[in-house]
This record gives sequence, structure tokens and C-alpha cells, in this order.
Amino acid sequence: MTIVTLTTDFGLIDPFVGIMKGVIASRAPAARIVDVTHGIPPQDVLAGALALRHAAPYFPAGTIHVAVVDPGVGTARRPLCVETATGVFVGPDNGVLSLAAPADAIRRIVALTEEQFFLEPRSRTFHGRDVFAPVAAALATGTPPGALGADVAEMIRIAPPLPVVETGRIRGEVIYVDGFGNLVTNVDEPTLARGGRGSVVVRGTRMQGVQESYAAVARGEPLAVVNSWGLVEIAVRDGSAAKKLAAGVGEPVMIEAE
Amino acid sequence: MTIVTLTTDFGLIDPFVGIMKGVIASRAPAARIVDVTHGIPPQDVLAGALALRHAAPYFPAGTIHVAVVDPGVGTARRPLCVETATGVFVGPDNGVLSLAAPADAIRRIVALTEEQFFLEPRSRTFHGRDVFAPVAAALATGTPPGALGADVAEMIRIAPPLPVVETGRIRGEVIYVDGFGNLVTNVDEPTLARGGRGSVVVRGTRMQGVQESYAAVARGEPLAVVNSWGLVEIAVRDGSAAKKLAAGVGEPVMIEAE
Amino acid sequence: MTIVTLTTDFGLIDPFVGIMKGVIASRAPAARIVDVTHGIPPQDVLAGALALRHAAPYFPAGTIHVAVVDPGVGTARRPLCVETATGVFVGPDNGVLSLAAPADAIRRIVALTEEQFFLEPRSRTFHGRDVFAPVAAALATGTPPGALGADVAEMIRIAPPLPVVETGRIRGEVIYVDGFGNLVTNVDEPTLARGGRGSVVVRGTRMQGVQESYAAVARGEPLAVVNSWGLVEIAVRDGSAAKKLAAGVGEPVMIEAE
Repeated sequence: MTIVTLTTDFGLIDPFVGIMKGVIASRAPAARIVDVTHGIPPQDVLAGALALRHAAPYFPAGTIHVAVVDPGVGTARRPLCVETATGVFVGPDNGVLSLAAPADAIRRIVALTEEQFFLEPRSRTFHGRDVFAPVAAALATGTPPGALGADVAEMIRIAPPLPVVETGRIRGEVIYVDGFGNLVTNVDEPTLARGGRGSVVVRGTRMQGVQESYAAVARGEPLAVVNSWGLVEIAVRDGSAAKKLAAGVGEPVMIEAE
Repeated sequence: MTIVTLTTDFGLIDPFVGIMKGVIASRAPAARIVDVTHGIPPQDVLAGALALRHAAPYFPAGTIHVAVVDPGVGTARRPLCVETATGVFVGPDNGVLSLAAPADAIRRIVALTEEQFFLEPRSRTFHGRDVFAPVAAALATGTPPGALGADVAEMIRIAPPLPVVETGRIRGEVIYVDGFGNLVTNVDEPTLARGGRGSVVVRGTRMQGVQESYAAVARGEPLAVVNSWGLVEIAVRDGSAAKKLAAGVGEPVMIEAE
Repeated sequence: MTIVTLTTDFGLIDPFVGIMKGVIASRAPAARIVDVTHGIPPQDVLAGALALRHAAPYFPAGTIHVAVVDPGVGTARRPLCVETATGVFVGPDNGVLSLAAPADAIRRIVALTEEQFFLEPRSRTFHGRDVFAPVAAALATGTPPGALGADVAEMIRIAPPLPVVETGRIRGEVIYVDGFGNLVTNVDEPTLARGGRGSVVVRGTRMQGVQESYAAVARGEPLAVVNSWGLVEIAVRDGSAAKKLAAGVGEPVMIEAE
């Protein structure tokens, strides 16, 4: 049984996600549909790419991952199908697939030009329904990627900003804020090992070291941990760091060796 | 495998939807449950009816669609099962089923009176759990609609207001606001073809024509498009028209021929 | 087909729930995953325990219920598997399982110490992914609870405050506020039968009796009903009691005999 995952910025207020599931269930009745998330902030392609990067590895090989964060819907931006060793990724060519499908893992990139796999008529505003869901259904029922269009050499790549390692400190920044208000930074464990982990400073608040778990500090106090994505995260025990520190995406985070 | 879809105003904060799924999974283990949406504004029967109208056609024939937006729960309002050529609709007789099951498509309307299909005891406040979920499970396991109660001739029908076509212009209004803040109007494509598409005016903001896609204007600018439901929609590229124009359901929308 | 239910405070904005589903689908492909809710307020263990108590009875016997409201993640708090006559409950030992698995229904309590069932490496911040999801998958594929660790005699139990029955009145309080703004109290039907049901007073607002359904009063008016959980609930017809009465969890509710 093939799994089709969905990652979008459609939210769950409207029936858009349900409609995509209807299309997939109609055309690929045996496919199993799993939501990764539909809570990506509207048009935030990087947030969608990060969510997919951190979710895809936990699904079985061969899973079809559909990601629709698509501010360019209706323009000439290409719809893509990207095959890697671990899965198949379907979505617009705007970078949303690029973190989950790194360059060295790619087997082929196909521009989706074979319109007989799309819904007819095709809207200019909802390719989740009209292009990406039916293409995922085609893949789930055994259509090879190569039948969906022409191979292309490249896709648009995006990435969060890189941290800067200096003598005695690492200058990072917040790249994602989760629903608990945890501030996820761009500093991963290997980078942390190259710099120090003596203290972490965000908006003038200095935290002692990088802790092992949220419980290292008292309730309501801020701390730094390495989170489940392998990234340094600023949290407040039983609280919201985003609120307490009044910080969001882009906020500088300084990690000092001592 | 039969599909059971769910459309409610229960939200996803509470376990109500999960409880309905437990009832269906207990009584119809082979049925596949798909959420259309649980984000209908509380007690907004028309919004529920619109969501179901635009989602149901994308599901396979024979799908059982359960819709529970039910401000009259516990009163004498009838629970219904409505069979059409394409599916079976289950919900209260308050209009929530009426847009997805238009009069000319109806095969039979059954008032759900056979209480042996309900849960026992039956609450007065949660017929999603006690009436509609078990009836959907009965249908999914092969119970014919006629066994669930008595045929009735009519059901309550609701509809969004109709646009008015005048010489040189169409007077419409906003009937739905989606999660992106797009303002969906009651003007469909055939109506648009009868009037003009020269410019669209909402709350004093005039937009040039009806565009092909969101990308026809610069970021942050408003525009009109025909959306994926075939309706004229006021949007803001990469933004929220509801916020920028401070408009919601009921807001007049004037479409002028020139 | 075994059902695995999920009850968490992870919300649906982030991919955390999707990641848990990926882990379960990878390790137990035949298991069916059903969301109870992911809208538990962050770290609100009692709210999670109440949701699970009222949802679990509607699932088939043998269902595996995973509940992750886990402010102590990464500390020495034990992960548990609790078997009852009706299901298997998996989650942290902080009380979140204790209302759904009452003491007199418990067959065995197992502390999850067999780390070969966990994901490797194991984070200190996301045991939903690294401990509870893979353990649920192990159970769903037939691993007996006893293989997952050592039997223990007790688990942490929590409970909402008990109402006080006095001559002529019951002193209760609000223990849960649902998404409609209904104020759910700790007064159940047997307690109500011991006291009176003449009038209900919340924050100076007196309501006549305990009604049969929301429709007993005019729109916008407050009332008391026995809700679908068998508990006295303060509601506002077609509105929000939480807003109208400016009340939340902990608010005293007085039920007077006359």
C-alpha cells in the first residue's frame, strides 16, 4: 500500500484539503493519505520545505510526498515530480521540495507536462486539486515518473541562512517557530561542536549553556536545547519562548563558547 | 471500500470528531473516513452547505457524506439521509445538505426514525456521535437508506443570495471567506458572461477586470479572479483581501462591464 | 486491523503529528491511525486525560490509545503501557492515561524500559516520535505489553476536583471549556440526582433548572444542560458561554435544588 503525504498552507478551516483527498481517493483508491501538516504559514515556502525535510525521513521508502505552498499558482512556474532514493516528491518548482530532496539524493526531476494526468477543466488558483493530487494518484497507481513529463536538469533550491562560526562564538538565527513558541535556529549539532556551548544570547537574554532537556530549568525560565530536528532551539519550560522573548523568524541567536 | 466523509463545525480542539470516528470505526471497520473540514464557523449552516457542495463532486460515486452543522440538535428538527445519483448525504434537515443534493438530483429523502441504528443512550446535544455517525456506519455496511426510516417528500433548502444582473453591471456579494482571506462571491462564470468584466468594486476599491491568476498584479495588490469553485473571488496577491479591504460575508461586490 | 489513536497537545500547525504517523506507518503498515485530538492546551495533562476518558469508550476493544501531553519529556518520568479490558494505553506516567484507565479496570501497567523498541537516536524533546509512536507500532504488530518492559504496581493518577453536595445545593466548578465555549462542569448525572436541579448560578447569572436541550432558551441566552459526557454544562444557545459569562476552567458553579 502506497502512502501519499500532504504538506500545505491550506489550513483546515476550508474544505481544500478534503477536496484533494477526494481526488486522490477517487483515482488511487488503495493509496493511504497521511497529513504531514496543513498549517504552513500562507505562502511561506521555506517553512514548508523545512517541515517536509524533517518529516519525510520517517515515512517508508517509496512514499509519495505532495507539498503545495504555491504563491505562484497560475503562473509559468513548473509543477515537478522529483525522485530520490527514499521517495517521490510532487509540488511546484519554487524550492518547497528542495530541502527534502537534496541535490546528491536526486535520481530524476520531471517537469509535469503531460496534462492528461491533470483534472479537466483546470483552475488557475488550485493546482493542489487539479495538478498535484491527480499526479500523486497517478504515481500511487504505478505510473512511472517519466510518463508524467520531460526530465529536467535542475530545480529551484532554497535554504535557510547558514550560521556563521567565529572564534569563540556562533552567530545563528531563528528559522522556524513551532506551535509551542519554541524558537528553532539554524545551528545544527555539528556546527555546535565546532563552536562553544557556554551560553546562548537572544534579545539580551542570556541562557546558561545548551541543556539536555526542557526540565533543566525552572518553569517559566528560558533555555537552549538541541531539539528533535538536531537543531539548537530556544524554549521556555512549560511556556512560549516566542512570547517571553518577543522573538520570531530572523531573530539573531548568539552562541558563545564560554 | 466505502468512503465516509465528515463536514462539521466541531473544530479540532476537542475530541468530538475523534469520537465520531471511533463510532464509525467500531460499527463499520472497513469504511474509510475522510475529513472534508471541521472548520465551519459554529452554527453556520450555509458555510457548511457551501463546503459540501464544492467537495462532494470530487469523491467517488457511492460516498457517504456526513454533515453536522446542527444548531437545532435536540429539537424536533429531523435527521435525514438523502440519496442522489452520486452519493448519500446524512445530516440534520436544516439545509446543510441541500446545496450538495440539488432537487433535480435527488432519488429519495429518508427521515431517520429507526432508532435501533442510533447509539443508546442518545444525548440531546451530540447527534454527530449518537445519530449521524452510527447511521453512516449502517449505510457503509450495506443497510439500504429505506431501512433507516420513512421516505419524505421534501427537505429544507437554503441558498446563498443570487446576484442581480443589471444593464452594464452585476451586483453580487461575498458569500464565503476562506482561510487565506479570499472573498468568494455569489457571481458564477455564466453570470459573469452575461454581465461585464471590466472592473470590480468592493468597499470603494476598484480592480481592473477579472484576471486569470493571482500573479496578474503586484504583491499586496487586490484583484478579482474566477476561483476553483467557478466563482468570482476578490484576492490580494500573497495577502488577505478580508484584511486589506476590511470585508466579510455579505459585503456588496459590483462588477461593471467597462 | 488494529486502531492506534492519538491524543496530544502538539497542535496541527507543525509536522509533529505527521511525523508520529510516519513512524507508525513505517513500523506497523496495517495499523489504522485515528486522531482523537491534537488540540489539548499545551502541557494541560488534565485536559488530555479528560479527552481520552470521553473518547476511548467509543473505539473497538483492543484499540491502542497513545496520549502525549508530556511537560516532563526528557526527565526521569516513566513512559508507560497500560492494559485494560477494553484497550491499551501508551503515554507518559503523569496522569494523562489515568482517567481512561481507572484503577479497577487495569490488567497490568508496564514501564517501557526495553529501548530496542524505541527510535535510535532518541531525542530528549520528542518522545511522541521516538518512544510512544514506535511502542504503539510494536503493540499493533503483536508485541505483548510484557515484552516492552517491567510490570509496575502503580501509575500517577490525577482527577478533576470533586463537586460538593450540601443540603439543597451542589457546589461544582468548570473543568473543561470546549471549542464552542461551552463550560463543562464536574457535576455528573448521579450527583445531580442527589442534589437539586432547580437553578444554576455562574458568576451571578442564574439559569432556570437543567434543560433538556440547547433549544430550551432563546438565541443568545445561557442555560444548563447535561451534555454528551453526562456532565452538567453551561452553554449559550448559538453562542459562547465562555465569552458571555467571562468564565473558564476553575469557575465555581452552584446548582440549587429550588
